[in-house]
Amino acid sequence: MRNWSMIERFSETFRQNPSLSRLLVVFTVSGGGLVAYSEANSSNSEVKIPSPEVVSRKKKVVVLGTGWAATSFLKNLKNSSYDVQVISPRNYFAFTPLLPSVTCGTVEARSIVEPIRNIVHKKNIDIHYWEAECFKIDAENKKVFCRSSKDGKLNGNEEIVVDYDYLVVAMGARANTFNTPGVEENCLFLKEVEDAQKIRRTVIDCFERASLPKMTDAERQKVLQFVVVGGGPTGVEFAAELHDFVSEDLVKLYPKVKDFVKITLLEAGDHILNMFDKRITVFAEEKFQRDGIDLKTGSMVVKVSDSEISTKEIKNGQISSIPYGMVVWSTGIGTRPVIMEFMKQIGQANRRVLATDEWLRVERCNSIYALGDCATINQRKVMEDISAIFSKADKDRSGTLTVKEFQDALDDICERYPQMQLYLKNKQMSNLVDILKESKGDVAKEAVALNIEEFKLALSQVDFQMKNLPATAQVAAQQGAYLANCFNRMEKCEKNPEGPLRYRGEGRHTFRPFRYKHFGQFAPLGGEQTAAQLPGDWVSIGHSSQWLWYSVYASKLVSWRTRALVVSDWGRRFIFGRDSSQI
Amino acid sequence: MRNWSMIERFSETFRQNPSLSRLLVVFTVSGGGLVAYSEANSSNSEVKIPSPEVVSRKKKVVVLGTGWAATSFLKNLKNSSYDVQVISPRNYFAFTPLLPSVTCGTVEARSIVEPIRNIVHKKNIDIHYWEAECFKIDAENKKVFCRSSKDGKLNGNEEIVVDYDYLVVAMGARANTFNTPGVEENCLFLKEVEDAQKIRRTVIDCFERASLPKMTDAERQKVLQFVVVGGGPTGVEFAAELHDFVSEDLVKLYPKVKDFVKITLLEAGDHILNMFDKRITVFAEEKFQRDGIDLKTGSMVVKVSDSEISTKEIKNGQISSIPYGMVVWSTGIGTRPVIMEFMKQIGQANRRVLATDEWLRVERCNSIYALGDCATINQRKVMEDISAIFSKADKDRSGTLTVKEFQDALDDICERYPQMQLYLKNKQMSNLVDILKESKGDVAKEAVALNIEEFKLALSQVDFQMKNLPATAQVAAQQGAYLANCFNRMEKCEKNPEGPLRYRGEGRHTFRPFRYKHFGQFAPLGGEQTAAQLPGDWVSIGHSSQWLWYSVYASKLVSWRTRALVVSDWGRRFIFGRDSSQI
Repeated sequence: MRNWSMIERFSETFRQNPSLSRLLVVFTVSGGGLVAYSEANSSNSEVKIPSPEVVSRKKKVVVLGTGWAATSFLKNLKNSSYDVQVISPRNYFAFTPLLPSVTCGTVEARSIVEPIRNIVHKKNIDIHYWEAECFKIDAENKKVFCRSSKDGKLNGNEEIVVDYDYLVVAMGARANTFNTPGVEENCLFLKEVEDAQKIRRTVIDCFERASLPKMTDAERQKVLQFVVVGGGPTGVEFAAELHDFVSEDLVKLYPKVKDFVKITLLEAGDHILNMFDKRITVFAEEKFQRDGIDLKTGSMVVKVSDSEISTKEIKNGQISSIPYGMVVWSTGIGTRPVIMEFMKQIGQANRRVLATDEWLRVERCNSIYALGDCATINQRKVMEDISAIFSKADKDRSGTLTVKEFQDALDDICERYPQMQLYLKNKQMSNLVDILKESKGDVAKEAVALNIEEFKLALSQVDFQMKNLPATAQVAAQQGAYLANCFNRMEKCEKNPEGPLRYRGEGRHTFRPFRYKHFGQFAPLGGEQTAAQLPGDWVSIGHSSQWLWYSVYASKLVSWRTRALVVSDWGRRFIFGRDSSQI
Repeated sequence: MRNWSMIERFSETFRQNPSLSRLLVVFTVSGGGLVAYSEANSSNSEVKIPSPEVVSRKKKVVVLGTGWAATSFLKNLKNSSYDVQVISPRNYFAFTPLLPSVTCGTVEARSIVEPIRNIVHKKNIDIHYWEAECFKIDAENKKVFCRSSKDGKLNGNEEIVVDYDYLVVAMGARANTFNTPGVEENCLFLKEVEDAQKIRRTVIDCFERASLPKMTDAERQKVLQFVVVGGGPTGVEFAAELHDFVSEDLVKLYPKVKDFVKITLLEAGDHILNMFDKRITVFAEEKFQRDGIDLKTGSMVVKVSDSEISTKEIKNGQISSIPYGMVVWSTGIGTRPVIMEFMKQIGQANRRVLATDEWLRVERCNSIYALGDCATINQRKVMEDISAIFSKADKDRSGTLTVKEFQDALDDICERYPQMQLYLKNKQMSNLVDILKESKGDVAKEAVALNIEEFKLALSQVDFQMKNLPATAQVAAQQGAYLANCFNRMEKCEKNPEGPLRYRGEGRHTFRPFRYKHFGQFAPLGGEQTAAQLPGDWVSIGHSSQWLWYSVYASKLVSWRTRALVVSDWGRRFIFGRDSSQI
């Protein structure tokens, strides 16, 4: 995470002088070429095959997935006392924030992927990768059942059963259709690299079909009606990319049909980009209006047939239909079937998402961890543990908490229940003692003492600060790094626990719980304009944040290869435009 | 074709100083970027829509295909008095000589393609492109029937019927399976861009399957047995590329299975690359042996099942089977079904390939031209026209030809029957009079006079010089340029014919017949070694000709965009190696 904080520090400088960021991109890449070349040539192709007894002594870690969380875990794992097996149907890591750029050829698909074997093969740890898809987790017997995704030609070898000591579930999510009829069959999604490639082919296909000589104007209009469902960052970025692709490149090559093109963005809420600052939402909506992108908010999709998409106005319930050429569905994420099956098995059947504790451990399964989009952290409420907190803090068993007692317990409470810290920050209080004082009125500091009921009352608002983490690459990457760090220090920390006090039990937790640090978010809006919302509610919109976006994304890419490729793709697009060959 | 002759002149210089060619590549591209950028920005996106009566007066030219022949025709067409419609299921031109490089990711697929609309849209001619596939040619009513390749969603609009005044058939060929059972179902081909992409995915797939934990060594051996059928330039280049991919990149990432990899090249003839100079064949065979590529010559494929390929030794008829992971079939070309149907219609049912005359006109169809891989020129034999030639040359009707008469007729005969010129060249004679002298013995030049029987005898060997042109990009491109040149000067030449004398008729032919000029051929052999055979039987093998190959291919690419892309792909590969992500 070092790069992010560096960027953070530099961001102010960049805002004042955008050409600085341009230089950063250039240096990042030209320097990278040399480094990568020397790395590639010095890489040792020999492999140490460990003797069987060494392997058997090592703890077996099975990682499911090769996305942000899994890759970040593997990159940060440094302890060689594990035998790691990575299982995923995709033998590569994809830099998903650039997927919308791939849909229109601003960036090539291959530029944003890196083979997982490339990422792990230089490490001094036994990491094996199997290209297979997990279809069943057996928590009781500590086994995962996987199937090689290749059909046939394997004579029954396509099923693999793998034992584990620790299981890291990082399989990501699938697109959420909300069970809307026809979506699965007729819409395109934007989750995987293949999806982006398919969208690219379909866009060109629509233009070619509209150009056929026998088409009527009405048919042309239908074929060139592009519908994007979902006004989140992905949907908005895709709509903007598509608009740029059409207006910068395709109009030149398809002049006869250019007037029939229409891009419609459907959003069920009142505004697009509603997780962003209001200034960004307003800017984006105004920009889309200027660009001629048809924005329909408050409009819910109820059905998609093979030629029409039906929407319902949330205000008045009115149903209307739009004949379309292509629909891209981007309305958030849903749980994969294998995870749902697993949830039933472990008694989480009534939940919508797999729940973990603050240490990313799946509830009721000590040796299974889940991170990234496939799980959420079920944060412990202060109110659930309030009596235990009180009695642990009340060291002299007096039945009341004094300021001294409270101050001693403060760090542990804040560490175990992060909502407490948030509560203080939002109320602009410097520490927990202020809470006590607030609830007791304006008395002298030393005289403050609360009984259990007063304590409950003082903390009654704290749990409202709890929020689920967003399903972003940033969260997944931080979780992966956090878990790797725990695995790296497992032995040490089991001897000397470093976590907060246990309130429902004895001693301390082995590790500090996971804490997410938000470094800001981008929303590219097309036409070299990007909105950026950085920590401290600092908002920047326009060309300079586009260059900041270029710099951050270039620096966050997983390898020097992808870095050079993506930057050269940007250069290509700048010079030659985007390619419209249908491959 | 200007670049080729320039290259020819420079090639000797390059041989002495290979770094010169490296510089050429660099300059070609860095300069190109600027040119392309200014071109891209100055390109006029307005389109002139001609008024209907202008269109109706124009002759309609329909071009089937977007390959080498069709694209070369379109690029060279300059006469704006035609209304041109291009129909092809591929909306791009692909630089096919680099297809073997795409199979292993040395070059990206998108780097070697250029949208056909991009190629034609800057021209001052009405050129329209429809993405559709021709399924029937109706020569009698001058119509072609096409189907938009997109299935469904077009409500019966997928069929297009197009009228033409002139039809240019340039649809290329399909892979020739020689009706070997199982080839169609189980083998991969190397004709289209999609084929190359599929091969790339399959290679990685084989390595992933071999890496699965449950596989036995025998199964690993089978999955990593790559078979290439056909020892022509494409098959040899692919085998070499695959060997480089495995030994330079994949062994690092799949160390546990590297020893199971085997590449086998099957060739029915006695040697690979048999159209090349013997020195090249020997070098290639020795290099393959050093590289560990298993070369089986004299071995014919008789059957391909889903797991084994069966071959028959031509020497002793012995049948043997090889279990395989992937078979790439590259044994030459066959005729497409729509062309076969058309041949039946015009009375060429007994031929294997569509025949044209020396002016690329389909025999018995005056307004249909066929070029590239879908047709061959059926060269007229001297012996068929011998009496007509004799009587046209015998101006004084004396019944004998004198030296004077013969010399006067000489240019016309040589132009109409190119085999005559070849015969003279190969016999090292300076002109036709030498033929007469040879057949009459050593008499004085003026005394030579032949009657018809003596004349027949003198020319009896001439027709043995006739050879079919190879099915290469070079031939197709020259044919396209030739035909465009005819179309450019159609009106002028119909008034003042410039072709040779008609022997079976009156007057002269409208145009000079097509003549192929061979500029040499490359055979890349892997490991930065290329064999080059240039005109005058100049043979060069090794690193220097690899750089000549880089230079020539970079300069022959269709646009500055593809040029920059291919060269940067080469650079990427040099620095970062080839990517092994399965996308």
